[in-house]
Amino acid sequence: MENKPHLKTLADFAAYVGGELVGDGSTEINQACNVGSDCPTGIAFAENSKYVAEAATRLLGGVIVPAETADFPKSHIKHANPRLAYLKILHFFERSRSQVSGVHPTAFVEQGGFVYDTASVGAMAFVSNDAIVCDDAILMPFAYIGPGCVVGEGSVIMPHAVLVQDVVVGQYCVVGPGTVIGHSGFGYVWDGEKQIRVPQVGGVRLGDRVEIGALTAIDRATAGQTRIDEGNKIDNLVQIAHNVELGPHGVYASGVGIAGSTKVGARAMLGGQSGYSDHLVIADGVVLAGRAAGLSSIDKPGVYGGTPAIPIADYMRSVAAYKDLPKLIKRVRTLEKEVKTLMGEA
Amino acid sequence: MENKPHLKTLADFAAYVGGELVGDGSTEINQACNVGSDCPTGIAFAENSKYVAEAATRLLGGVIVPAETADFPKSHIKHANPRLAYLKILHFFERSRSQVSGVHPTAFVEQGGFVYDTASVGAMAFVSNDAIVCDDAILMPFAYIGPGCVVGEGSVIMPHAVLVQDVVVGQYCVVGPGTVIGHSGFGYVWDGEKQIRVPQVGGVRLGDRVEIGALTAIDRATAGQTRIDEGNKIDNLVQIAHNVELGPHGVYASGVGIAGSTKVGARAMLGGQSGYSDHLVIADGVVLAGRAAGLSSIDKPGVYGGTPAIPIADYMRSVAAYKDLPKLIKRVRTLEKEVKTLMGEA
Amino acid sequence: MENKPHLKTLADFAAYVGGELVGDGSTEINQACNVGSDCPTGIAFAENSKYVAEAATRLLGGVIVPAETADFPKSHIKHANPRLAYLKILHFFERSRSQVSGVHPTAFVEQGGFVYDTASVGAMAFVSNDAIVCDDAILMPFAYIGPGCVVGEGSVIMPHAVLVQDVVVGQYCVVGPGTVIGHSGFGYVWDGEKQIRVPQVGGVRLGDRVEIGALTAIDRATAGQTRIDEGNKIDNLVQIAHNVELGPHGVYASGVGIAGSTKVGARAMLGGQSGYSDHLVIADGVVLAGRAAGLSSIDKPGVYGGTPAIPIADYMRSVAAYKDLPKLIKRVRTLEKEVKTLMGEA
Repeated sequence: MENKPHLKTLADFAAYVGGELVGDGSTEINQACNVGSDCPTGIAFAENSKYVAEAATRLLGGVIVPAETADFPKSHIKHANPRLAYLKILHFFERSRSQVSGVHPTAFVEQGGFVYDTASVGAMAFVSNDAIVCDDAILMPFAYIGPGCVVGEGSVIMPHAVLVQDVVVGQYCVVGPGTVIGHSGFGYVWDGEKQIRVPQVGGVRLGDRVEIGALTAIDRATAGQTRIDEGNKIDNLVQIAHNVELGPHGVYASGVGIAGSTKVGARAMLGGQSGYSDHLVIADGVVLAGRAAGLSSIDKPGVYGGTPAIPIADYMRSVAAYKDLPKLIKRVRTLEKEVKTLMGEA
Repeated sequence: MENKPHLKTLADFAAYVGGELVGDGSTEINQACNVGSDCPTGIAFAENSKYVAEAATRLLGGVIVPAETADFPKSHIKHANPRLAYLKILHFFERSRSQVSGVHPTAFVEQGGFVYDTASVGAMAFVSNDAIVCDDAILMPFAYIGPGCVVGEGSVIMPHAVLVQDVVVGQYCVVGPGTVIGHSGFGYVWDGEKQIRVPQVGGVRLGDRVEIGALTAIDRATAGQTRIDEGNKIDNLVQIAHNVELGPHGVYASGVGIAGSTKVGARAMLGGQSGYSDHLVIADGVVLAGRAAGLSSIDKPGVYGGTPAIPIADYMRSVAAYKDLPKLIKRVRTLEKEVKTLMGEA
Repeated sequence: MENKPHLKTLADFAAYVGGELVGDGSTEINQACNVGSDCPTGIAFAENSKYVAEAATRLLGGVIVPAETADFPKSHIKHANPRLAYLKILHFFERSRSQVSGVHPTAFVEQGGFVYDTASVGAMAFVSNDAIVCDDAILMPFAYIGPGCVVGEGSVIMPHAVLVQDVVVGQYCVVGPGTVIGHSGFGYVWDGEKQIRVPQVGGVRLGDRVEIGALTAIDRATAGQTRIDEGNKIDNLVQIAHNVELGPHGVYASGVGIAGSTKVGARAMLGGQSGYSDHLVIADGVVLAGRAAGLSSIDKPGVYGGTPAIPIADYMRSVAAYKDLPKLIKRVRTLEKEVKTLMGEA
């Protein structure tokens, strides 16, 4: 557990974030809050004049404002970067995860499952017979660690998360509640009468510092590995199909779907409910707008939108044109009449 | 548990719904069924002449028909509002939830977790050390109630549902199976090399009589609270991001996504797979058609469709125009030829 | 458990798949792998000249190539159908599910719940008081089998899957991790002040050999049954609403949503994130492209795309036209100028 400093007053917090206290520093602060709320023991931030004005009308314990702010009528902290200062304060107020080393008496570790001494296996968690839980890893209640899985050092498997089988989780990862990693990929062949399942014998590999939200599904590979490289951040209710490879440091918002065997480059950003179809190769630095669907490979970084996804400027033009379609049809109808008249005259 | 009356025959059900029995009332009825099925011990309803005609061809224990129906050839119940009568019968046949007060021997309540006497903590449910489970609340098997959570009076947390932390559930709510409430909101900032997580220190607050389906994710706020006001009904596989606020009595169908900090007004209705992007303000009484995506704030009640969402009449016109686009292109090509001819002549 | 043959060398595998060994057959093979990877103890397949060329550059234990391949420079197996041969090898390498008959000491079977002798109830699984688990069925850890549910012979309920109530699962089915079947359908009526729940008293019936992925939701019927006929294969994060009926042998990809009471015919194929709205009737053999949304009934087999879904050829024309919309507008503007000029002249 990290050791948190003892901070009590607005003056304490001003010192903590390296800002300049203006006004009464004795107010007790016990929470972070939003600038748009009344929160007399809370501290908020206001990064521009609009929010500074809003803050002035609210009952707040204190507010962090840009260093150049003049005449703010209440106690406050001036700071060169209010957002960064606030981030530090959010860290301070974050609830520590309780981590008691050892296996909870209600958990079940199968014979052959290996749990390192400083790992924590929570209430009613399950560890399979050839799974490994490394140092400082935390399994929260109801976590399921299936055969052939490894939970890396310091990683956290949240309640009801499932590592089905052959899933290797790197260091300092977070697997969110209810998320399922390593279920059989969706592969079938039609034999003329029915669908025959293609056995899926591969695994999943998460790099270090991968963070995955709630209720996301990442399937294991047909053969080889589905690969989520280091530093990726994946939101809730995302689908990553078998044999997909995600380059490092991407951000995948909720509702995204990546179909089988697609390889996405580094530093991808995918907006809500966007996705890629199968067997594509996507360059580094490609951004998909919300709802966009990439249906063919993309070899240039940039922002893409629409279905099928095209460069965002083209997409915006098409959207504008689409809204005006009924008008365009009227214009064509008018033209047709006029031309008909002209042709009659000619 | 509610006390159900003892009803056995079609005559009993006619009396129960306050309708007029026509024909033999002695048939034994033991289930509700659909008018389109053969179900000799079942009761169905037929609210218009089409369904009345269908019912006449089926083997049914009885059928509720509009009061004005003449010459229906089988035993039936006449009622001013067949749908309402049927609703009452569905209530009658609904399976009672078994609720045994107390903590099941296989459940685990951490020291400091507080369970009221008349609450029910089911098999293998988990209650964290500073969580509270109020009177008449029901935790079904495998429910997880994390730190700082409160389950209000008479609320039901279904199997495998997860309240991660700092989630306050009002009275008489239902949290569906596998649903995850209170997971960390999805907030990251790029530091030039990697994504840095923004700590999420807020919570979630559900008002009274909120009902949530299966496998839905509602994230906790960065600071303050994600708020689902009283009476909201949310379907399966829905995503509600951090700091979202949903006004009372809305209906959110499956696959909906609401992005961070968006505030939706009262009595919203969102069709399947529709959604709003982040930081919007949506008026009371706004209806989104299925698949629609609201990308900017909406200040007038009404029905909206498409991506980006526009008033539904405009959207329908654009859809019609879209289907005719290839024809429109041909018309323009024809015009171009004609005009070229005319210009040659001129 | 099936009895697997003892296979060790490339020669063993050549005999196993009925292919012709070319080169050294003594290499030890211990995994299936992809043709695009270096895997010195693995066997891959290459079904066309592009993949054969790729295989030639890789370090592989062996590769299955088309029978007509000439001059392949490394040890290999010639086979009339490399893909089929590889499928057999995938079956060989698939991890056997450990199945120990009986009820695990940490599982909980309520009084009245019935588990057949050769069924397996895993760690911390739960069986309700009037549920039935048939011969050779497997409940994996944390499976929840609610009241009125039946798990058919040889079916597997994976970790954290939930059968809420009145769900009848056929024989040799697979219900994936975290999937929820039998939750209350989403039905409400507005009473002028609030939404009133319509009780859902029906069930769900899965035919034989239905396979369902992770985190999918299938709701029980208002009355009668939601029906998934035999042989259907359903991916992760799919929504099947109340009273839906899916004809046999369909394939439903991730993110699909089928709204209430829609009846889909046999051998359906639905691409990722596609769906149908409610109360439709869809013919046998209808294929929906990814993202397509069927908004009205379809009575002819074929491939459909777009929202609303139209025959795929029409959809492709509209997509092409859509991309060219901004150009079309320019063409109309040009025409308008020209016609204006002509009219001035006329």
